[in-house]
Amino acid sequence: MDSTERDEAARAFLADFRSMSTFGATTGGGVDRQAGTAADGQTRNWFRGLVEGHGFEVRYDAVGNQFALLELVPGVPYVAMGSHLDSQPLGGRFDGAYGVLAAAHAAIRLRAALADASAPAFNIAVINWFNEEGCRFKPSMMGSAVFTGKLPVEQVLATTDPRGTTVREALESIGTVGDFGLEVAAYLEIHIEQGRSLEDHGLSIGLVESTWGANKYEFVVHGEQAHTGATVIADRHDALLGASLLVAAAREIADEFSTDEHAVITSCGEFTVFPNSPVVVASRVDLLVDLRSTDHDVLAAADAELHRRVAAIEERADVSIERGAEHIWASKAYDASGMALAAAAAEELGLTYGTVRTLAGHDSTNMKDIVPTIMLFVPSVDGISHNEKELTRDEDMLAGVDLLTEVLRRVVGGDFVAGG
Amino acid sequence: MDSTERDEAARAFLADFRSMSTFGATTGGGVDRQAGTAADGQTRNWFRGLVEGHGFEVRYDAVGNQFALLELVPGVPYVAMGSHLDSQPLGGRFDGAYGVLAAAHAAIRLRAALADASAPAFNIAVINWFNEEGCRFKPSMMGSAVFTGKLPVEQVLATTDPRGTTVREALESIGTVGDFGLEVAAYLEIHIEQGRSLEDHGLSIGLVESTWGANKYEFVVHGEQAHTGATVIADRHDALLGASLLVAAAREIADEFSTDEHAVITSCGEFTVFPNSPVVVASRVDLLVDLRSTDHDVLAAADAELHRRVAAIEERADVSIERGAEHIWASKAYDASGMALAAAAAEELGLTYGTVRTLAGHDSTNMKDIVPTIMLFVPSVDGISHNEKELTRDEDMLAGVDLLTEVLRRVVGGDFVAGG
Repeated sequence: MDSTERDEAARAFLADFRSMSTFGATTGGGVDRQAGTAADGQTRNWFRGLVEGHGFEVRYDAVGNQFALLELVPGVPYVAMGSHLDSQPLGGRFDGAYGVLAAAHAAIRLRAALADASAPAFNIAVINWFNEEGCRFKPSMMGSAVFTGKLPVEQVLATTDPRGTTVREALESIGTVGDFGLEVAAYLEIHIEQGRSLEDHGLSIGLVESTWGANKYEFVVHGEQAHTGATVIADRHDALLGASLLVAAAREIADEFSTDEHAVITSCGEFTVFPNSPVVVASRVDLLVDLRSTDHDVLAAADAELHRRVAAIEERADVSIERGAEHIWASKAYDASGMALAAAAAEELGLTYGTVRTLAGHDSTNMKDIVPTIMLFVPSVDGISHNEKELTRDEDMLAGVDLLTEVLRRVVGGDFVAGG
Repeated sequence: MDSTERDEAARAFLADFRSMSTFGATTGGGVDRQAGTAADGQTRNWFRGLVEGHGFEVRYDAVGNQFALLELVPGVPYVAMGSHLDSQPLGGRFDGAYGVLAAAHAAIRLRAALADASAPAFNIAVINWFNEEGCRFKPSMMGSAVFTGKLPVEQVLATTDPRGTTVREALESIGTVGDFGLEVAAYLEIHIEQGRSLEDHGLSIGLVESTWGANKYEFVVHGEQAHTGATVIADRHDALLGASLLVAAAREIADEFSTDEHAVITSCGEFTVFPNSPVVVASRVDLLVDLRSTDHDVLAAADAELHRRVAAIEERADVSIERGAEHIWASKAYDASGMALAAAAAEELGLTYGTVRTLAGHDSTNMKDIVPTIMLFVPSVDGISHNEKELTRDEDMLAGVDLLTEVLRRVVGGDFVAGG
């Protein structure tokens, strides 16, 4: 591209980004597009219109993953790029959405560049994965988990939100479901960092070298419903006390088990009290606790300590604590040759870059287990994420699209995996 | 009454109690009749039909208190008895409802007994107070608070439930609202104990000598929404951690500040997390904390410790804790002459009795501040309350109705307060 074309491409990306951010927009500058809601459906339809206008064909699979297909050479396999357009409640407008739009623009730019070059080795698909966030329907990364065979589709379609609506019903209500399937040769994803390491080091691009290991547990604390006024302390089986002690213990474990080399991060994001009435001792609390670390042994030690403490808390609060579903994923590396390819592309474009680890899960966490995968980050201001104040600067978004385009060019040209 | 009449009266009470317990009945043997719901409305209409069949007239005041009036002598003042027909979600079928039905039966029995005696000094009103429980609309004891001038009616009518429905709308939807007012000369209430002291001492009747002092606080813990996976511990402002530490601190204070003579009881019954998504650090938690004690000085020391700890928790969790509305009521004695009257009545009937304090608030807690009041308890099996398993045995319920009838006879005869 010459500089006029570059300016035009940048303007087009930023204009599309602004349009996209109006769907589910919140007054605080973020978006609320939980999976399968009307706002999610509107965003998906907008995206369909956008890419169809550029000659893509749009298809859906049984779990609502949205595939935008750009066929360059009939019959050759596909390189896929993607992320997700759904959001947290009161989430930011960059998380996921940036990556989907960046992928579409990278594909559009590459097709223009290829118009007068040799035939590419691959076709291109841009995927908007269903329900990456996992707030309305659990677990997170649902669409890519089904696509990669980690979750059975029937189980996922029968999963209900807190009001009892199933995934199947939600997908039918927004009309973005089908029976499409796609064979993918390689996968690329770009995402905002949601942390501060790029910003702290003054870098434009992060090459993701591994995911952190994570152990996620659903706990149910069982107490006994009683009158808060009339029931003496000795007679109480207070589920809220038990659950609160578990939240405090999780933080203490993060503080105690982090080493100089490896941090332990613990969280509790969901915590629901029953019956939650002002004058009633809680009979039950459902909560999620997760532990993450880059190091397997550190994570295992922290995990053992958590379970030791559960027993002590049961005694202290005179409750029983049941461990329900768990999701465990080990710390796992991304493809080293993909990182080298991305580093060479960044150097060619004169972009500063470094290697990073991702604490958060992404759809590429699933995809890297089935195909060679490259994961790229752009900076997040102050590392703020899952928050309406989430921000990635225009120049960082544009640098990311430039790099993704160059990486895609190399991958489609056969530099990463052998072509069809 | 002769023994046939007594048997007939007992059967009638138990039959009415069973009918009443079908409204809002839960599968666990309790009831769910939160204030202003359809189930509350149905119970109120059933009660209206019951007492109208016995010749009472039913009226409502502006806040939905239901007055069943039994005029014995035109023009003389009223002695009121009452309690509440609303319940906790998944509450027991005795709490409140027993007292309303016992009062109606006591009035019906006394009228029959008076038929061939001298003219009584008072008429009789049975009051079903609106929203004693305070779970759907806060605060508790709402109807009696308005009646006794402690809360302004307009403020109460504008109070909303978590879905935004106002008290005014809820009352209009169930149709039990009016503009009635009543001057009351004395107030009697009978209630289940919701504790174990009567059962532990093998007593049939409790004469309530005082309320416990209670300090109730609404706290809002303000944190900052963030991604649970990607946000390092040092960057977190975790409202859920702050709120959990507050729950744990409240329990520690109960343990530390209870003395041999005076217990401190602390509770947190309502605890709501925002946005409550699995992968989001909580931005806000709303919670209620209350401290209760029979001793003013012990309560004050415990309260000071709670507020000292709030400051430490703000620092530990890097959050700010805002104190919202508070409800403070001092430990306060019931009328000593009323206790003596009830003790004499119990002796005449051969019922075992003792003095007790009430940890829980009751409508009589409000009424005793404006008129001479007598509060009676019957035993609760295992002290279980605000629970579907709440149970008071038939013989204990019947003994309570017998005693309330005898106490009413004496009060209506002018033995407690001067007649009109």
